[in-house]
Amino acid sequence: MYLASDNWAGAHRSIAERLLRESDGFAAAYGASDLDRRVERRFAEIFERDVTVLFVGTGTAANSLSLASVQRPGGITFCHSEAHVIADECGAPDFFSGARLIGVPGLEGKIDPEKLKEKIAAFPQSAVQHGRATAVTITQATEAGTVYSLAEIGEIAAIARKDKLPLHMDGARFANALVSLGVSPAEMTWKRGIDMLSFGGTKNGCWCAEAIVFFNPERATEMPFIRKRAAQLFSKSRFIAAQFDAYFENDLWLDLARHANGMSDRLRSGITTSNASRLAWPTSANEVFAVIPKSAAKIAGEKGAKFYEWPVPPATPELVGQDETLIRLVTSFATSEADVDGFLGCLAG
Amino acid sequence: MYLASDNWAGAHRSIAERLLRESDGFAAAYGASDLDRRVERRFAEIFERDVTVLFVGTGTAANSLSLASVQRPGGITFCHSEAHVIADECGAPDFFSGARLIGVPGLEGKIDPEKLKEKIAAFPQSAVQHGRATAVTITQATEAGTVYSLAEIGEIAAIARKDKLPLHMDGARFANALVSLGVSPAEMTWKRGIDMLSFGGTKNGCWCAEAIVFFNPERATEMPFIRKRAAQLFSKSRFIAAQFDAYFENDLWLDLARHANGMSDRLRSGITTSNASRLAWPTSANEVFAVIPKSAAKIAGEKGAKFYEWPVPPATPELVGQDETLIRLVTSFATSEADVDGFLGCLAG
Amino acid sequence: MYLASDNWAGAHRSIAERLLRESDGFAAAYGASDLDRRVERRFAEIFERDVTVLFVGTGTAANSLSLASVQRPGGITFCHSEAHVIADECGAPDFFSGARLIGVPGLEGKIDPEKLKEKIAAFPQSAVQHGRATAVTITQATEAGTVYSLAEIGEIAAIARKDKLPLHMDGARFANALVSLGVSPAEMTWKRGIDMLSFGGTKNGCWCAEAIVFFNPERATEMPFIRKRAAQLFSKSRFIAAQFDAYFENDLWLDLARHANGMSDRLRSGITTSNASRLAWPTSANEVFAVIPKSAAKIAGEKGAKFYEWPVPPATPELVGQDETLIRLVTSFATSEADVDGFLGCLAG
Amino acid sequence: MYLASDNWAGAHRSIAERLLRESDGFAAAYGASDLDRRVERRFAEIFERDVTVLFVGTGTAANSLSLASVQRPGGITFCHSEAHVIADECGAPDFFSGARLIGVPGLEGKIDPEKLKEKIAAFPQSAVQHGRATAVTITQATEAGTVYSLAEIGEIAAIARKDKLPLHMDGARFANALVSLGVSPAEMTWKRGIDMLSFGGTKNGCWCAEAIVFFNPERATEMPFIRKRAAQLFSKSRFIAAQFDAYFENDLWLDLARHANGMSDRLRSGITTSNASRLAWPTSANEVFAVIPKSAAKIAGEKGAKFYEWPVPPATPELVGQDETLIRLVTSFATSEADVDGFLGCLAG
Repeated sequence: MYLASDNWAGAHRSIAERLLRESDGFAAAYGASDLDRRVERRFAEIFERDVTVLFVGTGTAANSLSLASVQRPGGITFCHSEAHVIADECGAPDFFSGARLIGVPGLEGKIDPEKLKEKIAAFPQSAVQHGRATAVTITQATEAGTVYSLAEIGEIAAIARKDKLPLHMDGARFANALVSLGVSPAEMTWKRGIDMLSFGGTKNGCWCAEAIVFFNPERATEMPFIRKRAAQLFSKSRFIAAQFDAYFENDLWLDLARHANGMSDRLRSGITTSNASRLAWPTSANEVFAVIPKSAAKIAGEKGAKFYEWPVPPATPELVGQDETLIRLVTSFATSEADVDGFLGCLAG
Repeated sequence: MYLASDNWAGAHRSIAERLLRESDGFAAAYGASDLDRRVERRFAEIFERDVTVLFVGTGTAANSLSLASVQRPGGITFCHSEAHVIADECGAPDFFSGARLIGVPGLEGKIDPEKLKEKIAAFPQSAVQHGRATAVTITQATEAGTVYSLAEIGEIAAIARKDKLPLHMDGARFANALVSLGVSPAEMTWKRGIDMLSFGGTKNGCWCAEAIVFFNPERATEMPFIRKRAAQLFSKSRFIAAQFDAYFENDLWLDLARHANGMSDRLRSGITTSNASRLAWPTSANEVFAVIPKSAAKIAGEKGAKFYEWPVPPATPELVGQDETLIRLVTSFATSEADVDGFLGCLAG
Repeated sequence: MYLASDNWAGAHRSIAERLLRESDGFAAAYGASDLDRRVERRFAEIFERDVTVLFVGTGTAANSLSLASVQRPGGITFCHSEAHVIADECGAPDFFSGARLIGVPGLEGKIDPEKLKEKIAAFPQSAVQHGRATAVTITQATEAGTVYSLAEIGEIAAIARKDKLPLHMDGARFANALVSLGVSPAEMTWKRGIDMLSFGGTKNGCWCAEAIVFFNPERATEMPFIRKRAAQLFSKSRFIAAQFDAYFENDLWLDLARHANGMSDRLRSGITTSNASRLAWPTSANEVFAVIPKSAAKIAGEKGAKFYEWPVPPATPELVGQDETLIRLVTSFATSEADVDGFLGCLAG
Repeated sequence: MYLASDNWAGAHRSIAERLLRESDGFAAAYGASDLDRRVERRFAEIFERDVTVLFVGTGTAANSLSLASVQRPGGITFCHSEAHVIADECGAPDFFSGARLIGVPGLEGKIDPEKLKEKIAAFPQSAVQHGRATAVTITQATEAGTVYSLAEIGEIAAIARKDKLPLHMDGARFANALVSLGVSPAEMTWKRGIDMLSFGGTKNGCWCAEAIVFFNPERATEMPFIRKRAAQLFSKSRFIAAQFDAYFENDLWLDLARHANGMSDRLRSGITTSNASRLAWPTSANEVFAVIPKSAAKIAGEKGAKFYEWPVPPATPELVGQDETLIRLVTSFATSEADVDGFLGCLAG
């Protein structure tokens, strides 16, 4: 019953076997191999557009270097108040980009467009002392397990575009959002105004495969230097490429995400029909937030379930009763029905 | 005939298979798994001492974060003039550490101790305008294919210690140096005054496994934050641990390094006995520098050999004749006798 | 009627004349002159304690370098949400210190101690992903014109001390706060737990004189390098020393602050007794925030008054009526009774 | 006999009196006053071109922020091996710009054009691991007391331009070089290919007045943010403007520089005709390097002369005999004939 995070899973067998096959032979280092090139082209096909792709080792690197590419002195990047970039990366985006991150509130993990407008307006380009707005980043799927609709992405993009602010998407759970919406990668990104994407493979079945995708290659001209200076150019880069190669083959990535989301659906369904527990808020990707009795949390822990108790969002303190606790459950490609049902059993008991 | 670099090789089969085995199951992320802990202890056994170990993704990261841990404002790190940190890492060590790197000359890739003393003396702690000496780093094996003897390491260490400068070793080719000297890991490091080590696995059969080793854990207290802020904390860190686990099993790592060095010995021997070619300088690890006829280089290239022509060291311009060229040959765990003999055949004409 | 800011004033005649006298002769550069030394000792007398003093050129530099001295990787500095360091310095403190600033709310420009406790608790030293609390900074007098009482400073200091966080005071308007409270410099700083102080002279009659004061010299050992690397070591540093020399002579600095505060008292008194205007909140140093009819603001502007309209604090939107506006008025050593009365006349209609 | 440095002098009386006059009255802060604007236009007249001017507090700031404006990730700035930016600014240019500085040798303080070509060629834009050439900076007058001729500046500029590298001039002693050459400010800068200038006033009679001059304003668009983030935007900026106002009035600045150079001429002449001492190399601005008997240095010191003994340039070890020492003498606007003659008297024995 490993529901603590999707990064507690290992690697999908197809991807691990592809790594094994790639282990033989020789190839040019530092991203110059044929396989690197081929997988970069694969990204272009998937996104239906000429793109610049850079492989890096961690999601934090993908976010930080994406944002570094568009920063200017005194710059400010706007993100959701609870976004990974501001809350969980130890200041890496600030360190690499030299920008300050400013959180924008919004319910259920999504930036409130009106609040975003207000924040941007507070940092006009002319007011040197305050600093200046230089970028916006959204997370898809969000940290709260929700998914921006295409219209919602478009609305944020329109706000960013009005002030010529590049728009980045943190896609650590890109595939989960994609299959949740049932749209194409192009529709969820550049067709709605996304300029740069952190495309995550690690949480969805790779062991270490993250890519920065620029939808306008002319924005990416500095990236090779930004990446190398950030110690993110892997000598045997082709092993990252190999993981993505297997990830994309026969739409494995979409299947894995559908499985993960399906396991969360099963959780959601079980929790909704339980007597003592309930969903904290609706989610639609592979994360579930539930309010459960403290006693149930204790039992589940004793039975070996791994999950995190979660801080109650400040905006909704009434969400959780006195004998209750808020928990986060994350499913992955490796979550089994038995895991889910075992956990639901703890709640029932 | 892949002799361009040891990072053109893939991964050794035992390591790749270990990764495949590790792909199943669940484990705590971000370095907190049992396997991470177990492999960290393995390092302590290998080095015969309590150590702090941090896994990172690239050699540049290992070097940069090692040096970041000991830097102070206005600090200067001394390295060999041709060291990887100053010549081949796009300023990453400066970026992460905030230090300036100053190159110290020396023949055949080794810092000249007298020159090091002079350089350090030029940056006294009291002279705020010049900046101040804060660290020394050496490379073992060196970029020139040579290996510092234990006495030579001790001599550098004594100079550093006199001014209380922490001493770092870039061990991207640590194993190759170790088997060349035939000494223990402890003897080549902390017993001779090394404080921090970039322990490289990637060039010697892993696909992506680098470790920062602190021989005095109290020096490493800031490292978890330095690593996370540098985007080098891998969520599925246990896959790096798994590589090292296989790497150390039954002394695989030493066998692989002996093979690589042996293949370089075979190259050295063949070149020494050839008519038209010669060794540029003596080397003893898995790199060979040779002066060969331009015609032979051309032939080898046409026959598919991969290797780099190399700049002639400024201190010895007479090394290479008019119709000759200096080349670098690097062997690895994956180099075969056939490759070596094929290349030697090209030289023979 | 120059009430826009205290830095619109020039320099007090005694200070300007002292600069003129100092212009003759020769003296050691870069802070090594006898005058530099003598004025540093004067700081020790004024603060009744051995201190380390560093002269710098701007208040932003004093704040940024103070905070830089105590930062560690992944560090977070807590300040009031509207503090100068977070709102008006274009990210300089982040740039120089590598820390993130996190704003803590609180009424009338003062950090709410309970909110501070909550914020610090959210960044435990063990949680590498969130970053970690490393410092607290307060502003005295605050940006809102209020002054922390000694007890309030002590309360913040106790919270900071509990987590071993160094406590900095931004004293751009130190003298105004001091005479408002009627206490000694020692009482308002180290006796209440302040570790580092940005001691401002510029807003109170100097033209360019700011000092960083460390109450524990052992905390300041890195500062000479931090200052030089920050381009804040002035070659003719003795001219900053000379300004402070005149500033302190015969308690000129306290007289100037008393005058500035007195002019604000006169404003406060006049506004309180006016019909259509009122104080937005009580202030006690040299800043006054008033709610006045928009028509009065227009008239004052037409008559040449210089002042800023100010954003309404989000926590108190009801503060300002429909036909009203919030304004900030700042008095200085150079403000005259005629200026004040002229402005009050505009309000009277 | 103060010959240690031109920054041991105070401020010229005309400048100090101008500061006193400016101390009255009120004016917009942060560089927005009428006086700031007027003096900025004065720069345009002096340079016969539309320029962007930014006042800063120190020469190190002027250099560092100039270079910061043109840097890119992995960038390298080339300077003379003994330039102030690399040798005497504690890493500030690296810190502010994120670039590495690489020294280029050359006799008598001037970059050797052939060596510059070689260095630039070693850092092609395509080789991500080495970093890339991004700027060149020269010092006029040089640290060695020499002055680049217009042709020499043009030659360096042609090399920089060929690789599209912006060219900066560190003009801490701009006026001394200018009157030495007898040319116009335009001729010595943009007409010869200089893009950015650190225009120093402090060493030549101001107490604190440095300006960054961009000859192509479109290069300077980021500068207001770069300056503010660097803590170099002075609230009472008009006092810097006032110093320059007096500095330029009736060509005072040229007169002061002529005086300083003339005093060096007097030194050069006296040393040349002395028996035991000699010029170490020819200089033409306000610095003199001389080889004198150690005994004479001792006598001069005992008689109160202030000057620095100087390291012998590594390229010319034979310059100084066994009983001799190399010294640096710097004259300024405040040096008197009596000082010079007194010092020469010490040499005479």
